[in-house]
Amino acid sequence: MAVLLSTKPAAMALWRDALLAVDPALEIRMFPEAGDPAEIEAAVVWTAHDMAELRRYPNLKLIVSMGAGVDHLLRPPGPPPGIPVARLVDRMLTSQMGEWVLLNVLRFHRQDAEYRAQQRDRIWLELPAPVTGETPVGFLGLGELGLHAAGLLRSLGFPVLGWSRRPKQVEGVETFHGAEGLMAMAARSRMLVCLLPLTPETRGIVDARLLGALPRGAWLINGARGGHVVDADLLAALESGQLAGAALDVFQPEPLPPEHPYWAHPAVVMTPHAASITIPASAAPQVVANLHRARAGQPLLNLVDFSAGY
Amino acid sequence: MAVLLSTKPAAMALWRDALLAVDPALEIRMFPEAGDPAEIEAAVVWTAHDMAELRRYPNLKLIVSMGAGVDHLLRPPGPPPGIPVARLVDRMLTSQMGEWVLLNVLRFHRQDAEYRAQQRDRIWLELPAPVTGETPVGFLGLGELGLHAAGLLRSLGFPVLGWSRRPKQVEGVETFHGAEGLMAMAARSRMLVCLLPLTPETRGIVDARLLGALPRGAWLINGARGGHVVDADLLAALESGQLAGAALDVFQPEPLPPEHPYWAHPAVVMTPHAASITIPASAAPQVVANLHRARAGQPLLNLVDFSAGY
Repeated sequence: MAVLLSTKPAAMALWRDALLAVDPALEIRMFPEAGDPAEIEAAVVWTAHDMAELRRYPNLKLIVSMGAGVDHLLRPPGPPPGIPVARLVDRMLTSQMGEWVLLNVLRFHRQDAEYRAQQRDRIWLELPAPVTGETPVGFLGLGELGLHAAGLLRSLGFPVLGWSRRPKQVEGVETFHGAEGLMAMAARSRMLVCLLPLTPETRGIVDARLLGALPRGAWLINGARGGHVVDADLLAALESGQLAGAALDVFQPEPLPPEHPYWAHPAVVMTPHAASITIPASAAPQVVANLHRARAGQPLLNLVDFSAGY
Repeated sequence: MAVLLSTKPAAMALWRDALLAVDPALEIRMFPEAGDPAEIEAAVVWTAHDMAELRRYPNLKLIVSMGAGVDHLLRPPGPPPGIPVARLVDRMLTSQMGEWVLLNVLRFHRQDAEYRAQQRDRIWLELPAPVTGETPVGFLGLGELGLHAAGLLRSLGFPVLGWSRRPKQVEGVETFHGAEGLMAMAARSRMLVCLLPLTPETRGIVDARLLGALPRGAWLINGARGGHVVDADLLAALESGQLAGAALDVFQPEPLPPEHPYWAHPAVVMTPHAASITIPASAAPQVVANLHRARAGQPLLNLVDFSAGY
């Protein structure tokens, strides 16, 4: 029995070596060289892998996504019926996203763009400093990524608010839920950080209405999915001054086409879906553990809930 | 009896109001309108205040510096003999400096300059990610500011090293001291953060020898004093590629003259001594407490140790 590996060519050998380091007995096949389809018992795939293709393997027991978000995998046609899908819940993914959020919160909070412009113009001028304890940051999404980033900001003294679909209690975070809660949280958030899963309910959640509910001159930080944001609404909010700036790691489509207005927008800070990069050596142990569990018929770790979409 | 207040004109009323909010019975005089010199019992002054001038007040009991660093005040002629000098140890000064250090550590660690350049050139390219747990950050100085910033980096997973003049034990920090310890720590530090007091022993500590001991392509972050850095050596290290970049908040002299090469250097990120700004409302309680202690002949808080120079 064998494991099918499918990722970008540059990452393929890294993944193979990382999996073999955990379990040298694994037989790894690197897509598209799958060998006998009947021998494939697990597929470890990146988000762009063709789900229809996975129907070719009659003995497939498990699909593992190489990232935290699985929205691409769940789109029609979706994974083969009855085959469980696991996502990565990886300390290194979580901590990288925390760093990226923190970098952008501090960039905005500490007036980095203004100071960089002053340096360019050789202006020596201390700007009035915003007070951390009076700068509430609102989180869309209180999953692994949101809770970790929220904790980092709390430890710096930012008041932290958080919104989730269902009610949640989180120590030190003022929580909100549902449609009303969303607007109530936005009204209090000087910065809005999106770390939601992309589902039919959250697609387009960052629209003119939500952006308009923020205090004037707020900032948006999106590390989740491009599909959460209505691009035209975000551009309009930046244009009107309702938003002071946005840090974006995710887009639709990706790669973002060169003619898109975000690239040259002076108030947009972009990274190319690089906020949190799966490091195979860190992720391999849980992938192998899940494979062993699937073989033994034991409960799987970090299973995707198809009805919730994440 | 009265308190003499001396600071930048823009901050004068803020300080007065903050002190009066803590003790409405205080009589505040705003320099240069000191009134009867014999009535001045305490002077609350910013770093640029003329120390010789303070010899005019025969009943002065206490000098309070409005900042954490007191090197300017201790320079010849120094404060009037026998008059104690207190510095501010303020949670808000400490936390602002922590934010500034963190912003710059993450800026360098997360390849921000490269990603900003890619955005400018409309290049969609994920860069190989440095691993936080393999990026040691070395601190020069393990006082209030250094310990706080070191703790923030530890909580993000950076290995933290620290150097101080005398041996210190700090939980979770690998500590070094003395001249040999300095070079040993440098050899291991991908980033070097200077938060030392400026004393005759630490002046010019960041010189060609120390910079040369860092791993090639390291970064320097100086939030202490311009006098810690030998500017010509720093510029040479940036030129040769020994240093990849520097974040500087402090300079000699300040304001930095417009013709100084730091302003336009592509690898230098500057702020105008704004990393940590004293907020009068936050600092006032300890100033008033010290004043009451001085009146009552009780031990003073946060006294400057003249022999150590901080």
